[in-house]
Amino acid sequence: MAARGWLQKGINAAMSIWRRLSLFVLASSLCLCLCRAEDSAMENIVTEKKAEESHRQDSADLLVFILLLTLTILTIWLFKHRRCRFLHETGLAMIYGLLVGVVLRYAIHVPSDMNNVTLSCNVNASPATLLVNVSGKFYEYTLKGEISGNEINDIQDNEMLRKVTFDPEVFFNILLPPIIFHAGYSLKRRHFFRNLGSILAYAFVGTVVSCFIIGLFMYGCVLLMKQIGHLGGDFFFTDCLFFGAIVSATDPVTVLAIFNELQVDADLYALLFGESVLNDAVALVLSSSIVAYQPEGDNTHTFEAMAMLKSFGIFLGVFSGSFALGVATGVVTALISFNFTKLRDLPLLETALFFLMSWSTFLLAEACGFTGVVAVLFCGMTQAHYTFNNLSPESKDRTKQLFELLNFLAENFIFSYMGLTLFTFHNHVFNPIFIVGAFLAVFLGRAANIYPLSFLLNLSRRNKITSNFQHMMMFAGLRGAMTFALSIRDTATYARQMMFSTTLLVVFFTVWICGGGTTQMLSCQKIRSIGPDGVERRSTKQESAWLFRIWYNFDHNYLKPILTHSGPPLTATFPACCGPLARCLTSPQAYENEGQLKDSDSDLILNDGDISLAYGDITVSTDATGAHTSGTPVGGVAVNSDVAPDWSFPWMIRSTRCLWTRTGTRTKR
Amino acid sequence: MAARGWLQKGINAAMSIWRRLSLFVLASSLCLCLCRAEDSAMENIVTEKKAEESHRQDSADLLVFILLLTLTILTIWLFKHRRCRFLHETGLAMIYGLLVGVVLRYAIHVPSDMNNVTLSCNVNASPATLLVNVSGKFYEYTLKGEISGNEINDIQDNEMLRKVTFDPEVFFNILLPPIIFHAGYSLKRRHFFRNLGSILAYAFVGTVVSCFIIGLFMYGCVLLMKQIGHLGGDFFFTDCLFFGAIVSATDPVTVLAIFNELQVDADLYALLFGESVLNDAVALVLSSSIVAYQPEGDNTHTFEAMAMLKSFGIFLGVFSGSFALGVATGVVTALISFNFTKLRDLPLLETALFFLMSWSTFLLAEACGFTGVVAVLFCGMTQAHYTFNNLSPESKDRTKQLFELLNFLAENFIFSYMGLTLFTFHNHVFNPIFIVGAFLAVFLGRAANIYPLSFLLNLSRRNKITSNFQHMMMFAGLRGAMTFALSIRDTATYARQMMFSTTLLVVFFTVWICGGGTTQMLSCQKIRSIGPDGVERRSTKQESAWLFRIWYNFDHNYLKPILTHSGPPLTATFPACCGPLARCLTSPQAYENEGQLKDSDSDLILNDGDISLAYGDITVSTDATGAHTSGTPVGGVAVNSDVAPDWSFPWMIRSTRCLWTRTGTRTKR
Repeated sequence: MAARGWLQKGINAAMSIWRRLSLFVLASSLCLCLCRAEDSAMENIVTEKKAEESHRQDSADLLVFILLLTLTILTIWLFKHRRCRFLHETGLAMIYGLLVGVVLRYAIHVPSDMNNVTLSCNVNASPATLLVNVSGKFYEYTLKGEISGNEINDIQDNEMLRKVTFDPEVFFNILLPPIIFHAGYSLKRRHFFRNLGSILAYAFVGTVVSCFIIGLFMYGCVLLMKQIGHLGGDFFFTDCLFFGAIVSATDPVTVLAIFNELQVDADLYALLFGESVLNDAVALVLSSSIVAYQPEGDNTHTFEAMAMLKSFGIFLGVFSGSFALGVATGVVTALISFNFTKLRDLPLLETALFFLMSWSTFLLAEACGFTGVVAVLFCGMTQAHYTFNNLSPESKDRTKQLFELLNFLAENFIFSYMGLTLFTFHNHVFNPIFIVGAFLAVFLGRAANIYPLSFLLNLSRRNKITSNFQHMMMFAGLRGAMTFALSIRDTATYARQMMFSTTLLVVFFTVWICGGGTTQMLSCQKIRSIGPDGVERRSTKQESAWLFRIWYNFDHNYLKPILTHSGPPLTATFPACCGPLARCLTSPQAYENEGQLKDSDSDLILNDGDISLAYGDITVSTDATGAHTSGTPVGGVAVNSDVAPDWSFPWMIRSTRCLWTRTGTRTKR
Repeated sequence: MAARGWLQKGINAAMSIWRRLSLFVLASSLCLCLCRAEDSAMENIVTEKKAEESHRQDSADLLVFILLLTLTILTIWLFKHRRCRFLHETGLAMIYGLLVGVVLRYAIHVPSDMNNVTLSCNVNASPATLLVNVSGKFYEYTLKGEISGNEINDIQDNEMLRKVTFDPEVFFNILLPPIIFHAGYSLKRRHFFRNLGSILAYAFVGTVVSCFIIGLFMYGCVLLMKQIGHLGGDFFFTDCLFFGAIVSATDPVTVLAIFNELQVDADLYALLFGESVLNDAVALVLSSSIVAYQPEGDNTHTFEAMAMLKSFGIFLGVFSGSFALGVATGVVTALISFNFTKLRDLPLLETALFFLMSWSTFLLAEACGFTGVVAVLFCGMTQAHYTFNNLSPESKDRTKQLFELLNFLAENFIFSYMGLTLFTFHNHVFNPIFIVGAFLAVFLGRAANIYPLSFLLNLSRRNKITSNFQHMMMFAGLRGAMTFALSIRDTATYARQMMFSTTLLVVFFTVWICGGGTTQMLSCQKIRSIGPDGVERRSTKQESAWLFRIWYNFDHNYLKPILTHSGPPLTATFPACCGPLARCLTSPQAYENEGQLKDSDSDLILNDGDISLAYGDITVSTDATGAHTSGTPVGGVAVNSDVAPDWSFPWMIRSTRCLWTRTGTRTKR
């Protein structure tokens, strides 16, 4: 009944649009007819007809994608309206992409008009810019890249399919940065920091383990294929490792959307989200280090310790370099927004500055030879942690909404392109053994990541990762945008083509099957929702992250006061001997804002089961000379904060506010 | 004193940033040093080193612009903080661009490493894709365009300057669309519609007049130059007309910003803004029609009636086609947002849809061979007029903020690029006679646009355009982004190069001098501000736009109810005989929303001096069959709205609300 009513409603809406449209179509088609005649007359005149034709074609191709996205949005609306959870927007975008791909492949065939000319030149290099002298006129050509012999035939085969193919670098330079930045910018969740240790373990150790397990397993498959003669080209161990690296980047966007909707356990959410954000970066750098593995001499595909070390060095160098650049730009933005406080009155300028600085991180990293996407991730995290606190409320909204929109558009674009590619890509190599092997390997790699690591982590975690959480994390190992972008980046060799085809299938399968089955899996694993207001706080069970506590104290006492307007003045947190330095670093605003010590991260650590000090809220007043007097304890306990060590555990003091609330003994101020 | 205090503050802020930065620079430089070593090791490995190098260089170039914009923002902040009105952000962006241009031109010289190779081929065509066989390997090249002989030397001259030069089509495909869309989207002002007739006259008649006056004058200059031997190449009458067209596009963004700040007379604002928005479109289409003027046969630069008519046809065809496409997409978006009302609960989807539909207008127009920028303008106006009313409050904010940001970034980018170009462009032709002539011509053209037209318009306007308004409009004829983009689009011939150089100077002069002198001019012309709350409404003086009233009635009675949730139900506005059609077209929501007839355009016509009907607010209730009963007059006068003609002047009824307010006799409901 509900379905019929909904159908009826949809039909009504469509009819209504149609009726309204027909009025306008009548009028506008008249105009269009008139213009068409002029248009064809105009075409004769235009001299550079070919360039214009190409521009038109490009516009039309892009239009196809835009209309695909529009269609996706309208369908998602129907789904959300009906509360369908079995298909996420990304899955839907893929389906639409697939359909358009089928149409382009089989229904439309534009034969090449032989507009490719092969020139044989006596030059030894391939210059970036080529000037071609065609009967007296000079034409400028730019290098697009080297292409393999069998690609040449494809280029001359179907023009239409070629037209809808983007340069893979578009993903890394345009589409991935906003997605990754948005992920980093959304990471400001207290549960993320509470589970930092585990997240780092899954992301770094787990991804590397998964990469090697998959690589080894696939190498076994490849050897088997070679044995029975199923292999049509070279496939080296480094290729297998590369495959392991690219399919180790998880992207559980589908699962997380459902988690968000159902308000599933926040720790599980943080573990999954944090892992997926960071392992994208790890997989990206890992894959480029594997590509960079090149032993010297002729034995280019054997093991060599020196080359291996070099690769490892590249991994460390690129990762830490990108990390440092990202954090540095984030810090600079925080400093600017910290000092140019009057920018708060001009949210447009503030948002523009924020956007430009975040973009410049990417460009700076790329210009320096690091990885822009990784830098952008850490920049986003830094921005969320520091800059965000300095923004005006309107800019907070604006920046969030802007990157939310960019993320949405880019993500759905990538997924619909993915669907399209299954039919429009010309050099697919589907090898049954390799595909079955890859699915097994992906499963094994994920298992080797989650279960042993969870066991090890549980040894030191107070808030254990229970077995149903582990199963859920295992299940939520979807592959997505990063895996696709990495696999399409280079499809020149036979091995890479086979990897690309297999990767596409892995992504489709995981997004549709694992993404679609999330609600079933959740109820099967009996993972409860925490309710609409998210109040269920398992406060006593908490990761005993000593590392994290040290970081938190340092961050709260020194970094936050230097970079944001929240946190205590430095004069209060620096040891007494460093008084002059503290006064020098503390801005006048810090004293002005001393009453508003409330940090949006103040619920970072809510409370701690072990330490239940009965301190109340504390306000610190500092006089102009930088000396400070502690004041106004709420619970009636006076704290002399002149003694530095008292301040080195502000989270203890912070945590008591929650305790008071929980035990119901809060004193009214 | 104020200046010194401000300086001190600035220095303090800078010092503070520096102190904070030094802490982080220390840490990050350590990281960077480590990575550099790895980095150089990595470079040896990369196979396509050249492509990577080029990508790095591109990133660095773009970074220069991003940093320029950042610097502009920070300086604007200082200016706004100090309430400096003599220099607008666009003027500032130009100055920074100039400075960077000087540095690039004179301080940095990267000699070409001979990476351009000229090939002589025996092909007759210039294919879009070129495959070059370099010693067995195939490289793919894409056509960038034809270049003239003297450009070839430049290409090999200074690599650095070439690198920072963008393809001029970037302006038309990426930077101008958001600017123009934003202008159209901001046009939803009641004063715009009140002055619609005058604005259309200035934009269409005025631009054409200005184009021909400037063209004729410049042709005189060219003849003079030819006489005295100052001309180094061909310069035809069509070139002069083309110059006339491109410098007829006004862009008073600087002036309007000050108007906005000072709350200057709303009618003057509407006249200037409306004219500048529309004449961009007119100038763009006009210039492309002039380029398309090509008499048949050998006499390619003489007058021919047929070719002239063809050009005129192209102008009409392209303009009306782009107009129709823009409006059509706007209407489709309005219909979607009208029917998918539940989209309002999902502002992200709504905003994304709005963005995609607006973008698809551009692509559709380009794919059809019309002018995307013009289509986008009319799409923006339609969106503002209809779709905007259907959006949720959050999406209204989001879309406005999004396009505000895009407009800001694109505009400042163009202006800083403009500054840069003065020094980095290689083929400048500065001809003193032409430059002086151009300044005179621009002045004359503007005068021939404003004064005669104002005189004619005043004959029929009740609200006269006073002489000080005319002087102000004359003064505010700044040239900006569109003029620049049109002049840089094609700089292949001598004539075009001279035009480009001259246009740059015109833009610089008008933006700095006219923009900077706006406040002086305002006070000199004794144009008052209307106060911060904008309440000064010269209600009795109003343009007697019979054309506009017919349009307004049609819009309000038929279009608004069909396309938005505001306005009366169609059953109320359609004649009685068309009842079934009206019922068919009226959505159920229209009945649901019948209580909320309040349209955000309801203050479009505030009141009319002649017609002061004493009708109060009217609510219309419609029963399910579509028959309606009028009800609840506020002022005690019953209106039987079953009689159709009563409804055909709803603006009369609307207008009374304001009258009540003004006379202070409003009855409490």
